[in-house]
This record gives sequence, structure tokens and C-alpha cells, in this order.
Amino acid sequence: MSPKTRTSSVQRPNLDELGLSMGKKVRLHRMLYEHGLKNGTLLILPIDQGLEHGPIDFFPNPASADPDFQWRLAIEGNYNAIALHYGLARKYMTKWAGRIPLVLKLNGKTSIPSDADALSTMTGSVDDAVSMGADAVGYTLYVGSPRQDEDFLQLQSVREDCDRYGMPLIVWSYPRGSAIEEKGGRDSLYAVDYAARVALEMGADIVKLNMPKHGSKDAEQPKKYAALDHSYEEGARRVVASAGRCLVLFSGGSKLGDEDVIHKAQTAMQAGAVGLIFGRNMWERPWKKALAMTKRMHDEVLSKYPG
Amino acid sequence: MSPKTRTSSVQRPNLDELGLSMGKKVRLHRMLYEHGLKNGTLLILPIDQGLEHGPIDFFPNPASADPDFQWRLAIEGNYNAIALHYGLARKYMTKWAGRIPLVLKLNGKTSIPSDADALSTMTGSVDDAVSMGADAVGYTLYVGSPRQDEDFLQLQSVREDCDRYGMPLIVWSYPRGSAIEEKGGRDSLYAVDYAARVALEMGADIVKLNMPKHGSKDAEQPKKYAALDHSYEEGARRVVASAGRCLVLFSGGSKLGDEDVIHKAQTAMQAGAVGLIFGRNMWERPWKKALAMTKRMHDEVLSKYPG
Amino acid sequence: MSPKTRTSSVQRPNLDELGLSMGKKVRLHRMLYEHGLKNGTLLILPIDQGLEHGPIDFFPNPASADPDFQWRLAIEGNYNAIALHYGLARKYMTKWAGRIPLVLKLNGKTSIPSDADALSTMTGSVDDAVSMGADAVGYTLYVGSPRQDEDFLQLQSVREDCDRYGMPLIVWSYPRGSAIEEKGGRDSLYAVDYAARVALEMGADIVKLNMPKHGSKDAEQPKKYAALDHSYEEGARRVVASAGRCLVLFSGGSKLGDEDVIHKAQTAMQAGAVGLIFGRNMWERPWKKALAMTKRMHDEVLSKYPG
Amino acid sequence: MSPKTRTSSVQRPNLDELGLSMGKKVRLHRMLYEHGLKNGTLLILPIDQGLEHGPIDFFPNPASADPDFQWRLAIEGNYNAIALHYGLARKYMTKWAGRIPLVLKLNGKTSIPSDADALSTMTGSVDDAVSMGADAVGYTLYVGSPRQDEDFLQLQSVREDCDRYGMPLIVWSYPRGSAIEEKGGRDSLYAVDYAARVALEMGADIVKLNMPKHGSKDAEQPKKYAALDHSYEEGARRVVASAGRCLVLFSGGSKLGDEDVIHKAQTAMQAGAVGLIFGRNMWERPWKKALAMTKRMHDEVLSKYPG
Amino acid sequence: MSPKTRTSSVQRPNLDELGLSMGKKVRLHRMLYEHGLKNGTLLILPIDQGLEHGPIDFFPNPASADPDFQWRLAIEGNYNAIALHYGLARKYMTKWAGRIPLVLKLNGKTSIPSDADALSTMTGSVDDAVSMGADAVGYTLYVGSPRQDEDFLQLQSVREDCDRYGMPLIVWSYPRGSAIEEKGGRDSLYAVDYAARVALEMGADIVKLNMPKHGSKDAEQPKKYAALDHSYEEGARRVVASAGRCLVLFSGGSKLGDEDVIHKAQTAMQAGAVGLIFGRNMWERPWKKALAMTKRMHDEVLSKYPG
Repeated sequence: MSPKTRTSSVQRPNLDELGLSMGKKVRLHRMLYEHGLKNGTLLILPIDQGLEHGPIDFFPNPASADPDFQWRLAIEGNYNAIALHYGLARKYMTKWAGRIPLVLKLNGKTSIPSDADALSTMTGSVDDAVSMGADAVGYTLYVGSPRQDEDFLQLQSVREDCDRYGMPLIVWSYPRGSAIEEKGGRDSLYAVDYAARVALEMGADIVKLNMPKHGSKDAEQPKKYAALDHSYEEGARRVVASAGRCLVLFSGGSKLGDEDVIHKAQTAMQAGAVGLIFGRNMWERPWKKALAMTKRMHDEVLSKYPG
Repeated sequence: MSPKTRTSSVQRPNLDELGLSMGKKVRLHRMLYEHGLKNGTLLILPIDQGLEHGPIDFFPNPASADPDFQWRLAIEGNYNAIALHYGLARKYMTKWAGRIPLVLKLNGKTSIPSDADALSTMTGSVDDAVSMGADAVGYTLYVGSPRQDEDFLQLQSVREDCDRYGMPLIVWSYPRGSAIEEKGGRDSLYAVDYAARVALEMGADIVKLNMPKHGSKDAEQPKKYAALDHSYEEGARRVVASAGRCLVLFSGGSKLGDEDVIHKAQTAMQAGAVGLIFGRNMWERPWKKALAMTKRMHDEVLSKYPG
Repeated sequence: MSPKTRTSSVQRPNLDELGLSMGKKVRLHRMLYEHGLKNGTLLILPIDQGLEHGPIDFFPNPASADPDFQWRLAIEGNYNAIALHYGLARKYMTKWAGRIPLVLKLNGKTSIPSDADALSTMTGSVDDAVSMGADAVGYTLYVGSPRQDEDFLQLQSVREDCDRYGMPLIVWSYPRGSAIEEKGGRDSLYAVDYAARVALEMGADIVKLNMPKHGSKDAEQPKKYAALDHSYEEGARRVVASAGRCLVLFSGGSKLGDEDVIHKAQTAMQAGAVGLIFGRNMWERPWKKALAMTKRMHDEVLSKYPG
Repeated sequence: MSPKTRTSSVQRPNLDELGLSMGKKVRLHRMLYEHGLKNGTLLILPIDQGLEHGPIDFFPNPASADPDFQWRLAIEGNYNAIALHYGLARKYMTKWAGRIPLVLKLNGKTSIPSDADALSTMTGSVDDAVSMGADAVGYTLYVGSPRQDEDFLQLQSVREDCDRYGMPLIVWSYPRGSAIEEKGGRDSLYAVDYAARVALEMGADIVKLNMPKHGSKDAEQPKKYAALDHSYEEGARRVVASAGRCLVLFSGGSKLGDEDVIHKAQTAMQAGAVGLIFGRNMWERPWKKALAMTKRMHDEVLSKYPG
Repeated sequence: MSPKTRTSSVQRPNLDELGLSMGKKVRLHRMLYEHGLKNGTLLILPIDQGLEHGPIDFFPNPASADPDFQWRLAIEGNYNAIALHYGLARKYMTKWAGRIPLVLKLNGKTSIPSDADALSTMTGSVDDAVSMGADAVGYTLYVGSPRQDEDFLQLQSVREDCDRYGMPLIVWSYPRGSAIEEKGGRDSLYAVDYAARVALEMGADIVKLNMPKHGSKDAEQPKKYAALDHSYEEGARRVVASAGRCLVLFSGGSKLGDEDVIHKAQTAMQAGAVGLIFGRNMWERPWKKALAMTKRMHDEVLSKYPG
């Protein structure tokens, strides 16, 4: 079920090590071993950007403004799951019901008000997820935000509902808010490393992280981090290690060229991630190119990292 | 029940495509095919302006200050529904009970305090709507407001109650608040387009939008929007498309001359809207003119767009 | 039960027109037709000023500091009801139980902190009212306050409890807060007119209003109001009209000379009010004068406006 | 049970006049007539200063830092009750269980953060009080604080729980917060008088007040209060009168010399109080002196005011 | 079970004196007498620093970043308990289940946002603790924080849940926030002494304190504290005395040299503490040194203070 051979440099935990209840194990197994490559890796297609950034994200590929585009891509591209908010599930899923696991995203916000005090509030519930046959829920936690206190409370309540129903919990663990911006910024190793650990401590089963990268504010990180002379690859490995027995998904971020996407994915998997959750890098490409990139992701990357 | 022939340029979704529960379908069918023109279009008369703007809106037509005026107009004008708050239903509906669908508006505010942090709080509940035999509820969401976080939570709770009872949810999706004013303003294409998508993601069955229009702050929109050289008609089509499988109602806004109202309505329907929710443009006209305008709306506009 | 002949210039609604549930009708009938003049008018004695203003209001008539004074005045003066908070009911009502309807005031505040963000929070519940045999509850709504959003939520909850128990809801609808002070002030026609409408929309059965009056800030009202050249009498009629199928009570405000009180009451009833809720103008007079003024109110005013 | 003869100048209400439920009467009777002097007066020993002021209050008498000191003093000194928070009851009461009535203090705060927006939040519940066999609960209300709105809500909830269980409610009614400091200060007659009335209106059975006194900010009180030329004794009588059918306890405040304490107590009882709640004036004295002062309080003061 | 002979200068309370319910006694007995030295002392290993400070705390000993390190250390080092948040229990405890008592830490925060208004919100519940077989829960209370009011409410709720389930409550009682920084700082005797008392009043069974120490802001303490000329040892004794019938654990704080750790531990126990909760001073040492230090702690310190 979860073979021990891995090619990544960091030991990726298998399902038996995650302290999972029966229901969580059933649902994660379904995503990891009964969909996609069925080899224990994950390729998830997220389409919550219409809420998070607005329709502007669909400008590079106007066809993508219709959520049916992403549903078809997820099905035809053989993804492990699609991740979106209640409305896009309720209105667009019926005809694909049962053909692909659903990750119901439970909280969100728009990009219109300032991010200084970021908090994403609920757009759905674990009950909604259960009633729609979802296999996991997604929750965005803004680590370091001045409103992190409210975020913890909200997440704890979601986590307890997940325990009740055996629903896997995926935490989008994002450093954010004015305090983070003063300590190296949201993409610094300090920030992402801390975010990985917080997700683990809060009880996430899977954590979605951005790849840490060097930036102009590196020196504003706490001294011990500012002093680290690490490569892009080492940064990725470090945050995967900090996530411990949380499986790690790396996100794709804004659109990159073909080889850069593949390189990012390789780095992520090499670092010990369980998989990728790439949205704009997929559906901002036209249909055929999106399918082709999906295939390359499967063939050139994910097939190399069975788990 | 919902014929496929349409004259609009945008493909309007029919009821079967909306992922509706039984109760929602029953109630929407009642509004779309058993009242008004019974052709799948909607003409809804809203009378929540007494709360939102105060009695000042009744000055052009003093008779309209008596809610009975709007009730009679809705009945005699053969509207598909009337939309108002709890008090105007409880006190004025008894004698018309069952003769016209009720859209119970569930939240509101006055125009007295500043709009910078706009949030409309509850004036009624889905339970109230059920107990009064309503066929839909209305909820005002202020997209982009600094208090959007609270708004999402409140809407999510209403949406879950709607799911429980099979009650259609109409979202008044209005860009509002200080952040919107700094990014092109509430009527910009950027703002309305985003608002349309948010309603879809949050699970609205119908979304009420304002027609986007050009304004002095257009250049303050995000660049990709500021760069668009679109016509009034294109703007309308775009936001209808962004609403996806939400049916779209366009609102009338402040009072216009006769031909301008008709033109606005034509543009709205041509863009793919399911109908119109025009208040002041109707009841700020004296009785006979209001009825006449209603008839023109039916004959010259809505009868052309069966769905 | 509710004769159609009226002498007021505005058509006062009768109980059958108010969309009342059985319990509400029973209780309002009791207040209107089985107490006081039993002619469909209301004379209510409020004694919540000890909370709202402090004991300072009792200085003109020290005997009035003992709540027993108001209870005796209400009984001996044959008022339709007495309105007060939980403590004054619990501690002083036992010996008069059943002899006069109780209007339990449910929320309040002191005058000590600033009024800029006025909100009155709960001092009792509809459950308290039911358990004490009350015939109505009173709720203070600060229309236009920056905290109006919270006020709506709180009122909606009270209103739903009233529906559950068939308990009539009297809304003290008071323009208040910094935004109102910038738009003509709390006594302006604009403010009171808006307050009347809001109470109606929120589902009040009876609304308590102050008489609108001209003031130094009239020109700061919205233009259409500033442009109105209305008399004191016309102002009163207008706000009664805006209250629609809410019965209107006018409040007395601070103490006036005898003839001024009578004139105020006449104007109120002439404008279509269902009655008067005069406190300081009654109990700030010594016992005999208070009783005499009560009698004049009955004989010279309320007997003229049966309904 | 409650003899009518009294020596105080203000008529002190007896238990039959307070509108008490059965349970409240049982418990108050126990405190008033079955403990202490059993003559209808109260001498209560409060020990919540460790929370409110910190261990600094124990410096004058280091032995008093051990809560057992106050428990023994209350028992050996034959007090009517001891008043303290949950922790001091749970940890120190077992061996004295049933020997002295417990007044469970339900809310509190430390003196560390600023008092400008004072609000004491819950440290225990009425359920706790019931489960520990308490005979009353204590609640601190900060009258006039900018957060008075929250305080009212919290107190209302406690009061309803008290009604449910027949638990007497003692309100520590303290003027506090920035607005009070601008209107004469917390010890002004205006402030204490208002606080007395508020407790009555909110439904307190007993109110704990500070003795009002003249101070440097007297002229900042509302004019009618600033104009009063009252003695210390008259001030006390006035606030007792304002408390109406709430029994009044006066607090002792910070430590005074022996004769001053006795004089304060005499003044309080002469003014119509039901008793005294003196803490630091008792337990900041060494054991023998504390017992001696307790005896003088009984012999020289409380025995003179049976009720 | 709890022998009376003690070598500490302050009388340490035994379990029979703490007013414990059956369940609390069972669980505390298990920690005190059935694990570790089984002599009534406590040595607890905390690993919540990954949340509170971030992965930066693991830099001195990279192996410690894997929570399994601390689990193994706690087991092999024969600690009385391990203290951590939900995620580290759920994901890492299965294989050690039943071998060491779990103290489930229930609230936390990161060090990213400012501490000025510190409040730790919930990461788990007493229900979680029960369902995982925990023997105690940990709660961080920020005494003196401007948000202390919310903290009290949250703690009270946790405490009531502890009462319901017989779950021992350990309060991390930490002076914190802007007001504390203005009154001598978080490590001053004033601050720690107050924190000890607050935990007692709130109903803690065990309180975790920092050792008070002299600092540059000593003179900013309240006068009576600033005037005290106390030694390090006296400070420790004083705060243990202020905790009364709460058992006291002293925390280790940041990493010290070997002899300094032993000295700190000796001072703590000599002062009357029940034990030590040392984290970084243990697991920031490499495996063998961590085990060696643990052994010294047992042999040279805790074995001297049976209770």
C-alpha cells in the first residue's frame, strides 16, 4: 500500500506513521493510491484563485474563467484531486460526481482589502464536505498575522470537526501580515519554516507550503536564519523536515515557463514533498498545453517519487 | 420547462445546470415559470430602499412611501416577486398572501454611518422566510469591504440554512468600502467582475449586480482592467460570464428617463441576465406611469429573452 | 373593538391591519382596550430614566426616586401600561401584579460614556417578560449609530423571540451617534423620519419617537430635507406616515410647562399617534400635580382620539 | 424573622419586600438570620484582593497571604459570609464546608492593565456556586466604563442564571473608567449614586457600594450634584435611598485606624445599610487585632441595627 | 502516598490538601508517584517551543527538530510527563501510548506578532485531552496583558471542562504585555508574584512560573516591591508561597551551562516547588548530554525533595 522505497533525499512519512483515524486513512488512501498515478504522490488542481485574486487570474487563458475548464482538466488530466470552494463544487461537480476526489476549501478572502491583518473566514464547513462526499478539506492559516489568534481558534474548530468525521485536513500554511513583512517577508526561509512547524503542531495531515526563496529582505530575518547560507534546494528540504509527519504539498505560485515549472516540481519532490498543488501554472495554459504540462508532471516528476 | 432557445449573446444557464436541491428547484421554478411572464425571465420589485436610503427615496412619488403602493404594483404589474425586509412582509403581505412570490431580504443597514467599513447585519432569518412562505432570500454582501471577513461568515451561515431548507439564495453582490474606492470604485468593471465571481464561489443561486460603467477612477483599477477598452455592453457580458452558473439580475439604480431604463434593461438581458430587479425606476414613477413602464419592460424586453 | 372613526388627520392603523399573531393581538388588545381609557389610545408611564440618566432626573421631585411612586401613579392615574427594566419590575411589581400591563424594557445604558457610538445592551430578555406576565417589551434602537450593525443583530434576535411568544415589540427608535450629529442632529426631521421607517422595516409593532423639531443644524440635513419648509405639526404627521403600520407613541422628553405638555400631546395625537409615553413630564411633578396632569391628558387629549 | 424596629434613619427594606424567589429567600435568610449576629445585619469578609491588587495587599500582615488566614478569621470571627473567587473556595474551603456561607465572586481582573476601559470578566459561574453550596454570588459591575455595554450583557446572563437557581445576586457596583474620571471621579456622590440605581435596575438583590466622599474633582460632576452641599452622612443616606429595594453593603476600602473604621461602619449602618463588607480593614490587622476589631464591629455597630 | 518529610524551606502542599476531585487525584497521583522518581516530584519535558518560538530553537541541536527526539528523551529519561500541543501528540504518540503521562497543551501562539497585547488562543480542548488519555492539560495565561479579560474567560471555560472530567489543570502563568513592561517587566518579583496568586485564584492545580530575578527595571515596580532587598532564593520562596495550594513548577528558560541548570533546579526545589519543567535546557543538548543532565537532575536534585 505504501512502499518504502523513495528517491527523495528527505524521508517522506507514509500513511501508517501519521497517527490517522480510520476515516482519514480511507480518504487519504483514496487520493494517494486510487487516483492520479496511484503511486502515493499527489497532483492537485486548485481553483480558488477566482475568490482569492479575482477573475484577473483568468486573463491569460480566458477559457479558464469557466470553472468547467478546471473540472475537465482535473478529470482528463488524471489529477488526484481538485480543490475549490463550496460554490464551484455545488454548481459544477454533479456531472463528475465520484470521478475525482474533492478537496473542499473551507475559508477564503478576496485580495481587495489590505493583507496587513490577514484572516480568511469560513466559506464552507466540514459538514458541507461530508455531505458532498469530499475526501479532504483545505484551510488557509495566516501564520504570523496580527489576527493569528482568531485563526488558531477557527482552525482548531475545523480540526475537531475533521476528527469527528475522519476527514483529512490540509492546511494552506502561509506566512502573512505586517509582522512577517518586518521579519524577512512571506517567502523567507524563516517564515516558511515556521509556517511548516505551526501546521504540524496544529494537527494538519497535509500542509501546503510555498517554496522558500532568497529575497531583498533576507537580512531582516532573525539572526540565525539570516546567517544561513542555503541553496534553493536546501531551503525546500529544511521546510519539509520542519513539517515532520505532515505530508507536504508545494504550491506553484504565479505562472512560469515550462522548464521552470518542471524544475520547481522536481525540487519539491526531491525535497521530500508528497506532491504538488499547481493551479495557475496549469490552467493559465491553453487546454492542450495544460494537458501536456500535466502529462510531463506525471511522467517526468511524480512517477520518480513513489511512496 | 426551460427551453434552450435564447436570444442573448451569453449562454444563460438553465435550472437543470445549477446543481439545485429539490426545494430550491421548486421555488425557483415558481418564480421563473409560474409568475410574471412565465417564460424563465425575472422582473423583481425591490422595496428595501426605505431602510437603505431612508424615506428620502419616496420624495419623487410621495404615494410610494406607503409600502402598500409597492405591494399593489407588484401584484397588478405581474412581477415575478417582491423583495423586502421582514417588517414590510409581516405588516403588509397578509392580504396578498400567495399571490406573488416573496424574496425576504435578510440583512441591511442605513446610509447614515460611513460606508468605509460597510457590513449589513441581519434583519431576518431563513427561518423567517420559511415561516412566511417565501420563495427566496436576499443577502447583501459587500465585496472588498474591510469587514468582508465578517460578511463571509454571516453569508456562509445563511447559505447553510438555505441548503437545509431548499431556499434559493440571491446575493446582492456589491463592491463597497474604502479599499474598493482606492481601486477604481464600486462601479468599475474590476469591482463588479470580482463581485460576480465571489457570489458564485460563495454558493449564490442568483446574483444581483450593478451594471459596470466607466468612471473617473478607471485608471486606478488593477492594470489589466485599466487597460481594457470595453464598451458598456461588453462590460455587462463580462460580469455575467464571471457569475458562471449563478443567474444574474441587474439592478436599476437611481431613477432614469423612460428610454434610458428600457435601454439599460435591454443591455442587461442581451448580456445574458435572467432578469431585472428595478425599484426606484418603477415606484418613483406615479402609479399609472409605473404600471406603463412595467408593461413596456415585459413587452419590449423580457418577452424577447425566454429561457 | 377598534372603531373606524378617528379625528386625527393621518389614518391610524387598527389592530386588524398590523399582521399580528394571536398572542400579540391578545396582549395589545389588553393594553389598548382593557386599560386606561379603553378607547384604543395609549398612555404609558416610563421609568427607565434612573438607568438612562441617573438619579439626577429625580431631583425636581425627590419622591419620584422611589420607584413605588411611579407604580402608584401608573395605577391611580389609570395608565395603559408602565415601562421599566427588570429590576424595577422584580422588586416593586408584586403588590400590583395584574393591575396594570407591564412593558418590560429589555436594553439600556447609562449616560456616562460618550454617545458617539451608542448601543444599548440587554438588561432582560423576552423570556423574562413572559415569566413576569408582561404585555409588551421595549427595545431601544440607535438608528444611525456607528454600532447600528450590532444593534440590528440584537434587535433581530429580540424580534424573533417576540414572534415565538406572541409578545408585542415596542421599539424606542432614536437617531443617535456621531454620524447623525453631522447630518442635522437627532431631533431633525430627517433623523426622526428615517428612524420611523427603520422601526417599521425591522418589524416593530409600536414605535416610540421623539417629535421632530427645527434646530440650528437643520441645514446639515440631506438637501431634500433641508429644503422642506414644514411646520411642527407637519413634521409630526410625516413621521407618523413613515412609520406605516407601526403604531406610534410620542415621547415627552424633558419637563415642560402644563400647557406646553398638553399642546405637545394634542399635536402628537392629531398627527395620528396611538398614544403618548410621557415620563418626566408626569412624575417630575409632585403627586397631586402629576395626577392632575394625567387626568387632563385623558380628558382633554386621549378621549378625543378613539381608535 | 425580620423585625420592623430599626434605628437607622433610612428605612431598610426587609426580605419580604424584595420580590425574592423561594431559593433566594432561603439563602439570604441563612446569611442574615442564621449566621453572624443572626439579627438581619451582615458582616462579610472579602478576600479577592489577591486577584484585584496582587499579593502587595498582604504586605502589612504577611500572615494574611495564606488564604487560610481569612477562612479562619471568618469562622472564628463569626462573620455572616466569606466572599472570594473559585480557586480560594476549591482549595481552602473543604475543612470549613457548611460552617459559613460562601459568596462566590464570579468575575475579576488584575490591577495591572489600565482601568480606563475597565471590565471584569468571569472567573466562575453560578453553576460553580451551586455546586459548591454557595449562598450568594458576587459580580463586579463597572458603571460608566466605556465597556459598560459588555458588562450589562455579562451581568444580565449571570442574573438570569441566578433566577434559574434561586441564587442571591450581590453586585459590586463601582463607578469606573475614563468617562467617570471626567465627571467627578469614582468616589463622587454623582458616581456612587448613579451606581446604586443601576444595580437596582439591573436586578441586584444586594449592592456593594463605596461611601461617597468629597474630592478635588467635585466641581466636575453634573451641575445639580456639584451644587449639593451635603455631609458625609447625607451622602451615604442618599445612595442607600437610590439603591431602593436592594440591600446595601458598604465596603471598607484601604486600611484605616481603629476609630475611623468604627466611625465608617456606624455611618454606613446609620444610613440604612444592611451591613459591611470590610476586608483590608480586618485582615491587614494581625490575628488578634483582627479578631478584636471584628468583635467591636459586632458589639458596637451591628448589634445596634437589627432588621 | 505523600510522605510528610520534606527538605524544602517552604511547606509544599500534598495532594490531600488541594481540594481535588477523584479524577484529578487519580491523574496527579499517576504523574507524581507512578512515573519519574515516583517520589512526589515532577520532571516534565515541554516541547511547545516549535510553536512558541519556531524551529529556530532547534538550531543548537538539529536532531531535536524531530519531535520523536523529545518523545524518546522523555521515555528513556524517565520523565514524569511530556507537555505538547495536539499535533505532536496525534502524530508522534502512538508508539509510546501509555508509557508516559501526557500533558496536553491547550493554547498557544507564535512569536511573530507583537507581544504587547499577548493572548494565546486554543489549539486543543479538554475533550481532546480526555480522548487521548492525557493526565493533565496546560494553559498559558498572560497575567497583566491588555487582553487579560479575554484570557480569564477562556481559562474559566477550560477550568470548568477540567472540573467536569477530573482533569488536572496546569497554568503557565506568565506576566506579559505592555502594562507589565511598564511596571518592572515580566521577570520582576512583582510580576511573578502576582502571576502566582492569579493562578491560585483562578483554580489552577499546578502553576508553572519563571524564577523571578533582578533586572534593570526593578525600580519601576510598585514601591513596596521596589523597596524589597531580596535574594534570588528569597524571590523563589516568595512566589511559591503566593501560589498557596497550587503546586509550583519552575521553568528552565533558555539554555544554561550545566552547573547553572543544576543550581537553578536546586533553588527551585529548595523554595518549595514540586518540580521542574525544563525544555531547552534538556533537548538543546545532544542526546547523550541530554540524558546525562536528566540523570543529574534526578540524582542530585529531585531525589532530595520527596513529598
